[in-house]
Formats: sequence, C-alpha cells, structure tokens
Amino acid sequence: MNNEFVVTPYGVSGEVDYDVLIQRFGTKRIDEPLLKRISKYGPLHHMLRRQVFYSHRDLEWVLDEYDKGNRFALYTGRGPSGPIHLGHMMPWTFTKYLQDVFKVNLWFQLTDDEKFMFYDHLTLEDTKKWGYENALDIIALGFDQKLTKIFLDTEYIKTMYPLAIRAAKKINFSTIKAVFGFDNSNNIGSIFFTSIQTVPCFLESMEKGRKVPCLIPCGIDQDPHFRITRDVAEGLGYYKPALVHAKLMPSLAGAEKMSTSTKADTTIFTTDDKKTVKKKVMNAFTGGRVSVEEQRKLGGNPDICSVFQYQAYFFEPDDAKLAKLQADCRSGGIMCGECKTILFEKVWKFLEEHQRRREKAKDVVQEFFIRD
Amino acid sequence: MNNEFVVTPYGVSGEVDYDVLIQRFGTKRIDEPLLKRISKYGPLHHMLRRQVFYSHRDLEWVLDEYDKGNRFALYTGRGPSGPIHLGHMMPWTFTKYLQDVFKVNLWFQLTDDEKFMFYDHLTLEDTKKWGYENALDIIALGFDQKLTKIFLDTEYIKTMYPLAIRAAKKINFSTIKAVFGFDNSNNIGSIFFTSIQTVPCFLESMEKGRKVPCLIPCGIDQDPHFRITRDVAEGLGYYKPALVHAKLMPSLAGAEKMSTSTKADTTIFTTDDKKTVKKKVMNAFTGGRVSVEEQRKLGGNPDICSVFQYQAYFFEPDDAKLAKLQADCRSGGIMCGECKTILFEKVWKFLEEHQRRREKAKDVVQEFFIRD
Repeated sequence: MNNEFVVTPYGVSGEVDYDVLIQRFGTKRIDEPLLKRISKYGPLHHMLRRQVFYSHRDLEWVLDEYDKGNRFALYTGRGPSGPIHLGHMMPWTFTKYLQDVFKVNLWFQLTDDEKFMFYDHLTLEDTKKWGYENALDIIALGFDQKLTKIFLDTEYIKTMYPLAIRAAKKINFSTIKAVFGFDNSNNIGSIFFTSIQTVPCFLESMEKGRKVPCLIPCGIDQDPHFRITRDVAEGLGYYKPALVHAKLMPSLAGAEKMSTSTKADTTIFTTDDKKTVKKKVMNAFTGGRVSVEEQRKLGGNPDICSVFQYQAYFFEPDDAKLAKLQADCRSGGIMCGECKTILFEKVWKFLEEHQRRREKAKDVVQEFFIRD
Repeated sequence: MNNEFVVTPYGVSGEVDYDVLIQRFGTKRIDEPLLKRISKYGPLHHMLRRQVFYSHRDLEWVLDEYDKGNRFALYTGRGPSGPIHLGHMMPWTFTKYLQDVFKVNLWFQLTDDEKFMFYDHLTLEDTKKWGYENALDIIALGFDQKLTKIFLDTEYIKTMYPLAIRAAKKINFSTIKAVFGFDNSNNIGSIFFTSIQTVPCFLESMEKGRKVPCLIPCGIDQDPHFRITRDVAEGLGYYKPALVHAKLMPSLAGAEKMSTSTKADTTIFTTDDKKTVKKKVMNAFTGGRVSVEEQRKLGGNPDICSVFQYQAYFFEPDDAKLAKLQADCRSGGIMCGECKTILFEKVWKFLEEHQRRREKAKDVVQEFFIRD
C-alpha cells in the first residue's frame, strides 16, 4: 500500500493512491448500487461511470432527502489565482451536470481572500481581477443563470462573516495543524480561512430560513476543509454538508495534479490559441514505446498515458469509443502521433466553442454575481 | 522590581508595576516636558497631571504632525460583553478631552466579533445588543456627533475585511503566541482577531486617501494589539499608530483591574440606581484602621484606598482639593465613613446626569453609527 503521499487543499505531493485516500480520509466509494441509484435521476455522467468522481460523504442521504422533497443546494468554488485550465473545468462540468439533472441552486464561491493570503506574489486586486476573469469560464460552461449565484468573498463578507466567526469559535489551531499541516509560521489569515470556506455550506439554509442539505462537488484535495465543516455544522444548527470527490486531473506531463504551480507548457488554459494548444498536446507525455516499430509490435500503455487520460476524464464520453481507443493502443494499432492529433482536434473544438461562449459571458457576468 | 505580573488584552494577573510595564512594553513615560507641551493646546487633564494616562508611543510625533497641519484621528474601542462600569468610562472621558482640545475625528470600534469569539457564554446576538447598549454610554459622554463614528465590527466588515486580511498576511501564529500568550487550543477566530483590531488605525487614511496619523487612547492592557499593528503599518502603506496608555482603574475591592470578570458588587455600573451605588461605595475597600480611635491617632493610608483612588482617577479634578483630602486622611482628620459619603455624593451626581443623558442618547444613537 502506497502511503507516501500527502493531499491537502494547500499541496499534493507524492503519487496519490486514491484507494488509500478513501481509507485515510474516511470517505465512501461511489459503488455500483449508488451509481445505479443515481442513474434513476438521469443518465450517468462518464465521470461517474469511470470513477473520476469516485468518492463521497453522505450522498445517499442527500438523495434520500431529495426524494422526500427536501432539495439540496450545490456549492463549489475556485481560488482565483490565475487563468483557468482544463483541470479546473473538470469538476465544474460535473457540477453543471448535477444542476441540470436535479434542477437545484448552485453557490459558486471565489476565494479572492484565500489566494491573496496564501500567495506572496498576489495582491488582493490581483485575486479579485482573476475572480471576475475566472467567472467568465464558469459562466461559459452554461450554468443556469436563474439557479446560480457567484460571489467573491470580499464582496459578500458582510453576509458571510457572522457565520464564519460562529464556525471559527468551534475550531482551534490544533485542528488546523492536524488537518492542513500548518505550523506557527503560517499567517493568521491563512489559519482563519477555513471558517470562510465553511460558510457557503449554509448559505441556502440561511436564505431559506430552514435546514437545507448541501452537496459539494470538488477535487478530493478540498475534502479537509469540509471535514472541519462537518464537525461544526450541527453545533451551528445546520446539516453536515455532503460531498462528491473527484480524482485530480493529471497534467500533460503525466500523473501529477494540475495546479497553478504546474508548468504552463503542460497545462491547457481556456484562453490558449490553437497553435499553443496543438503544441502542448503534441508534446504530451504518453505510454508510447521508444520507436514506431516497437510500438507496432508491443503496443502502447494507455494506463500511464496523459493523452488517454484526457480522453477518459474529459473528452470521450462514449465508453465504446474509449474502449476501442484503449484496445487500439494496447494492440499497437494506433501510434501516439495520431492519438495526439485526435485529442487535439477534440480539445480545440471544445475550446473554440468555449472561447466564443466566454466572450458572450462578458455581457451577463455582472448578473451572475451577488454582493452584500 | 516586581516582575510577577502579566498584562495582555485577554487577561491581567498579579500586581501590576506600571514602571516595569513601561520597560517591558518598550513605551515612553509622559514626562514633564511632554506635559508642558500638551498644556499649550489646552488645560492639562487631571488624568495627565496625575499620571493616570502615563505612557505613550510617538505622541510627540503626532503633535509635530498636528503642528504642521496634519491632523490626527482618534481611535478607541469597546468589547461589548456586558454593561459599562466606571473603569470603562475613564479612558473614554479622556478621549473626549482629546477630541475637545484638538477638534479631531474619532473612530469608535465595538468589537462584537471579538467578545463573541472569546466568551463561551455570549452569542453574537448578545454582543451586538451590548454594542448598541454600550453606545448609549459612549454618546452620553458628549462626543461631538459631527466628529464621531461608532461602528460594530460585524456591521462594518465589508469595509474592514480587505484591510484586515492585508494585515493578517503579515502576522504569523508565532507572533500571536508571543504577544498574547495564546496556544494551540485557541480558536482560530481569536487568533485572527487582532487583524480586525488593527484596521481602524487606518480608516481615516482610507477615507481621506492619504496618510493620516492615528492616536489611540486606551488602557495599557490593549497595547499588545497595537505593537503588532505598528510592526505591519508601514508595510501596508500607513503611519504607525501612536498611543497614550492609561493605568487600569482599580475596583472598589482594591488594586485590581476593573473588568467584566470583576464581581458586580465592587463595580459601579452606569445604570446602577442610587441605593445600589451607595451600598457599593459604603462597602468599598479603604486604607482605614481597625477602629475609629486608632485612625484618629495614626491616620489612614490613601495609597491603598480604593475610595481615594476613585477621587484621584475620576471624581476630583481639583489638585488642591485632592491634596487636602489626602492630607486629612493621613492625619486622621477624616474617617472612612465620611470619605465614602463624599465619594458617593459625587458618583451619584455624575451618574444621575449620565443616566439622563444616556436616555437622551437613544434618540440619536442611530445617527452615530456607520455601516457598510
């Protein structure tokens, strides 16, 4: 069992074993019976079928409540520290799927305060600017305007602060140290921050004046925040938030988390032009052999191939087509160059449309935002 | 030298040696040359003449700037955890004196968030309610409405939060541990709080769009907050705040700090009725002898007498009259009962008028408050 890795919202190191992570975090696998249940509400998203969203907390309970007529609210977020790449978009496309299937409200938090406090090179003006920039990508994904509220922490703080300090009163520094691996050198804003990330779990309840379940789709690295939230929720008079956890999308350089620290040339940003996208895809790490001859003979290895992972996580929703691609790779029936070209064409088709929608989002972005 | 005492905003223990405290905190004494300088602006307040306000940071600089036409702003505050007693009022009457003499703006912070986070028995609704209650006492002291802004942290947080997190980013937990004596069991709201207490030092500068000096009259127990502020101020683009520090008003039980934890029967609240005030004063700890006979012969000891301290700190501004009272006590010319009656009459005269003004304050309290 591989235990030599660390996953927190503030850093992922080592090679993540997602099975071990379920045990370590104490979450549950999204298993076959649960998938079967979800499929009753709508077609199963490929990220569910393929165990990209693979872990959860209390998802059954959320569905039980939904079945009783107690609709949940969705909550997800973004730390606006720079441009959006495909790894960021993955859980959001899944969040949109949940909104489409269940027709529920979504609270989308932009943590401009967090990114400012955690990054030396960013001013609060920078993170706020990125918040509005990033919102264009969020809106471009097609969230229902009537059901979606986007907010920057600094612009919604008057609403959030009283609830944040009620949470903060129940969380001590020992907990923060244990959960996030912080120490005495951490700044006191970063120590306090998890209280702010806790609040949106309860915003729908506050607004409705009754207890409303909250479901958080997120990368599993964000789970530690909500473990803390779940510990304090009932004491604050709310339900514990439920979660569905995604694996972290690999970068084009191989099996590591795509994050802001990932090198720009192995990360596809939503605003990259065609030439740049092509270059990045064509330079991607694959499971190919040292020569075409050898690959024709022995076949490639899709298990370690970032190009195949991109198809599986994001760009090939059709299981039969994905299986054929996988088989062709293993049999030596397709070479990496061709495979990259296929992925590039899909990525660019997606991005060309996304960029068009992103431009259009500028007309409505203000209407998505809520402020105190 | 007595070093066996601790003074922080969150607790005072041991018998405070105020001379040692100046060395320990690294502040300056308000000495004769400085008093002489202050007297040029207006008559010296008895709290200055008697070294009740006895220590400072950068007060000369504030006056230098004032002389150049760069007026300072005043900032003081109150943690609204319960009713107001005379010990609370002492620095505020001095703050009003400074406002009257220098005709400057005053920012009066009510830290409803702080008191909620530090006291288990208080809800945020409680501290907010106390904030508005306490504001009546503040207003009753006669602050100039045109120059005075009162605010609750939770009602002004949208303005304060961006500046608070800019400060928080520069303060780590090691500093908090060292300055306040906190440990890992402190809640993360209490750890973050000093960032919020820092902000009002800069509100006048923010409002004016230029650097404005800030002068903070406060009990010396509050100095640790502003040592931190002074360390981060210039990095945030502001002047370091200047301070004038008061000794802590003794309770009627003797030489301890009057605080919310002080027993109610040795503390005179502003809303006490005549009978209650009389009972409290008549039961006060004095420097009297075991019998009237002995006191006539040996005299009393005003140095340890809380009744005399009340006259000196608050109720007898006339130095000659105070000196006579002191001499009469030492010579055995006045007995404790008579002395208590004199004090009671002054206290009640003050409170009767204060209570009348406190009622009238209800008509204007909303106008003193600023909100986001």
